[in-house]
Amino acid sequence: MTSADMSQIEAQAIKRLRQIYLKDLESNFSEPEWNRQPDSLYAPQRYIMSMAGKRLRPVLALMAAEAIGKPASAAFPVAHAVERFHNFTLIHDDIMDEAPLRRGQATVHEQWGQHSAILSGDAMMVMAFDALLKLPQAVMQPVMKVFNQTALEVCEGQQLDIDYEGLEAISEAQYLQMIRKKTSVLVGASLEMGSLCAGASPSQSQALYQFGLALGMSFQIHDDILDAFGDPSIVGKQVGGDILQNKQTVLQIHLNGCLDGQVMPGEGLTDELRVKAVCQAMRSLGSLDHAESLRESYFQSALEALDEAGSMHLAIEDLRAMALWIYQREK
Amino acid sequence: MTSADMSQIEAQAIKRLRQIYLKDLESNFSEPEWNRQPDSLYAPQRYIMSMAGKRLRPVLALMAAEAIGKPASAAFPVAHAVERFHNFTLIHDDIMDEAPLRRGQATVHEQWGQHSAILSGDAMMVMAFDALLKLPQAVMQPVMKVFNQTALEVCEGQQLDIDYEGLEAISEAQYLQMIRKKTSVLVGASLEMGSLCAGASPSQSQALYQFGLALGMSFQIHDDILDAFGDPSIVGKQVGGDILQNKQTVLQIHLNGCLDGQVMPGEGLTDELRVKAVCQAMRSLGSLDHAESLRESYFQSALEALDEAGSMHLAIEDLRAMALWIYQREK
Repeated sequence: MTSADMSQIEAQAIKRLRQIYLKDLESNFSEPEWNRQPDSLYAPQRYIMSMAGKRLRPVLALMAAEAIGKPASAAFPVAHAVERFHNFTLIHDDIMDEAPLRRGQATVHEQWGQHSAILSGDAMMVMAFDALLKLPQAVMQPVMKVFNQTALEVCEGQQLDIDYEGLEAISEAQYLQMIRKKTSVLVGASLEMGSLCAGASPSQSQALYQFGLALGMSFQIHDDILDAFGDPSIVGKQVGGDILQNKQTVLQIHLNGCLDGQVMPGEGLTDELRVKAVCQAMRSLGSLDHAESLRESYFQSALEALDEAGSMHLAIEDLRAMALWIYQREK
Repeated sequence: MTSADMSQIEAQAIKRLRQIYLKDLESNFSEPEWNRQPDSLYAPQRYIMSMAGKRLRPVLALMAAEAIGKPASAAFPVAHAVERFHNFTLIHDDIMDEAPLRRGQATVHEQWGQHSAILSGDAMMVMAFDALLKLPQAVMQPVMKVFNQTALEVCEGQQLDIDYEGLEAISEAQYLQMIRKKTSVLVGASLEMGSLCAGASPSQSQALYQFGLALGMSFQIHDDILDAFGDPSIVGKQVGGDILQNKQTVLQIHLNGCLDGQVMPGEGLTDELRVKAVCQAMRSLGSLDHAESLRESYFQSALEALDEAGSMHLAIEDLRAMALWIYQREK
């Protein structure tokens, strides 16, 4: 199948489910729960939830329900819970990163101040848990168990990120553990929980979790690569941010290993030249190839887990299209 | 019954349940869920949970279960959930208040930094929700509904507090609404949820909620009074903190109304003399009497709600002792 065929499938399954999710989100916004007082607590939540985004996690949750043969709407509570939780982490992470912008718009703390950002994030986490109360009683406890475990792991991943900032260098294994918790587990859990509320067996939902976990790893490494080597006109921002912030990524850790204490290329140059010099070194010393091969390897693991799910009578074609779309994205 | 008799009862019922709660807390601390990695995320949680405190909310939850005729342990999930949630709010509130000390010990953000304080608070909120997963399935949904509603109200109360900081003056009604959400609803919900997991009927649990709500109002107004007029040797800290921070309290709002734009007593004096002058004005202009009568009136409402609970075949004697103990406290 060509890349053009794939984006055709994207246009069908992914866009359809994103629309279904967004429609339900919009109808939520007119309900009393999203219009409580004081508005200063809820406006920041509606603001960040309304920013354009891939809606990866809710779409995967809905897709997992369909893969089991149930209507997507069976997974609405999970779709809202994971997207709310994800957005709660964005609000608090942006405070910690002192980020002024997200997707070209002011971050919540920039717009409403730090105190309101802490609090609206807190309230949004409650809203995430609250979404799960709409689940049928039979699946409530198992889904919540996965959700709580995942929520703790996401906090642990962010804490590792903070802890690592204080270290001179971290190993690739440490980095991979950190992104597994910070990013991948929630992708996996979106699929697992989406399938559980559609009646999946434990082994079916576990196969989908493993698919999401590996896909999330591939996704995050891809993000790191795009941040340094993406096309600025497609990515929509100047590349090289991670390099300028000395952020630990798979690329940077590999490069550090090659340089083995030698001075980093481009030291003392302008930002633009420094990014160029570091990217050049990442190419010539094999850091980019290494990152690409890691990304590829996680993607293959994802497809294997998906095939296993397929062998358990799940309809996995849309999920495969989603995985390919994520793998081929240029932004 | 004399005050000495009451503290005898306190020694029996309240201390007994506090011990039961603390013993279960301690045994929790040796379980895997409290010893996850990275420790930098969980150590701050254990630290604040281990600070000495009245343990008002968990004790009320356990007492509510006993009032229904069930063993206190039936309400363990609720006791842990409300105490964890309360401590999560303390961590985040201390960040917003830039408080260096809590109960004479360094606050979490002072000890571990602001980022870890935001995150360990976040994780603690997840731990609060997680405690409720140990409830029997039949009561899980109704208890969680109360919990989520209450959690949102507590965030709303804190947001009102932030919003009011930006205003020159607020009305007494605004202040009462704020403390109702910030403090009282969680006291009420501790009782409501404790009774629900012991099998209370909706009207029984509602009567207990109303009891807790009014008791919480009386408790918070009492706190305001003790902050200005308490005996420093009993309260354990210098009094007048609220006055020096120009905090809106029932006392301050009444005084503002009396002064009607005139300059506040003690302006330009040393802190100690300023506190003295303001307290003097609060006495002579009736602000203290007004606060005392509000506190008394909420306390009477609490007792009425408790009597109503008693008329529904609940064993309310320990709860009455608890209310009196709270009413008579000097710190």
